[in-house]
Amino acid sequence: MEGIIEFKDWEKIDLRVGKVLQVEDIEGADKLYKMTVDIGFEKRVICAGLKSYYKKEELVNKKIILFVNLAPRKMRGIESQGMLLAAVSEDETPQAYPEESSKKILTKGKVVLLSPEKDIDVGSRVR
Amino acid sequence: MEGIIEFKDWEKIDLRVGKVLQVEDIEGADKLYKMTVDIGFEKRVICAGLKSYYKKEELVNKKIILFVNLAPRKMRGIESQGMLLAAVSEDETPQAYPEESSKKILTKGKVVLLSPEKDIDVGSRVR
Repeated sequence: MEGIIEFKDWEKIDLRVGKVLQVEDIEGADKLYKMTVDIGFEKRVICAGLKSYYKKEELVNKKIILFVNLAPRKMRGIESQGMLLAAVSEDETPQAYPEESSKKILTKGKVVLLSPEKDIDVGSRVR
Repeated sequence: MEGIIEFKDWEKIDLRVGKVLQVEDIEGADKLYKMTVDIGFEKRVICAGLKSYYKKEELVNKKIILFVNLAPRKMRGIESQGMLLAAVSEDETPQAYPEESSKKILTKGKVVLLSPEKDIDVGSRVR
């Protein structure tokens, strides 16, 4: 677990319910999608590393959570204007020679998007 | 929208998939529940203002998102060791005398918990 965060620092983070409008491949990128997301007061273009986990058609129209005031980052020539929130499980895989070490090799597991568990307006803020 | 946040500041925030184990009323509190949540590496007791929005039985066994490294806060004598993430919609209600002002009165709308949109291990981190 990380260090303790004060509530005033948490409040600076702007997370919104967004709706995925469009999902496109990016030439030469095998992990990233270019996505357009409606966040109520505007539309955002983002790059998200979801290609190994979600089909395009699974994403369109889905309500997701977008971190909207993260510093923009250029990826594959596209300015990504936000970050989707997803839960990432790290499955522990036993080592080839467990008797030689108590350590485990961590392999990347599932990636599952967060969403509101019932319907709610696009643009709603997470608190 | 709030000021821009750098990725390194986002990374300090520890959000985990948790599973609600128990939900109890708190004597004299008409909005708060006392909840016990499994976050994989430990169990947390939290106070959450969900009583107007969720029945106890709707919450038990639900997978939710818990902000686990928020500074603990004492509420009604209970130390709340985390905060559930929820989307909050604010419905705009027209003012009684709209012709006198262009402002709207904001009334609190829905509160909907965030959850992983497919199943994933308790304790998985949100990224």
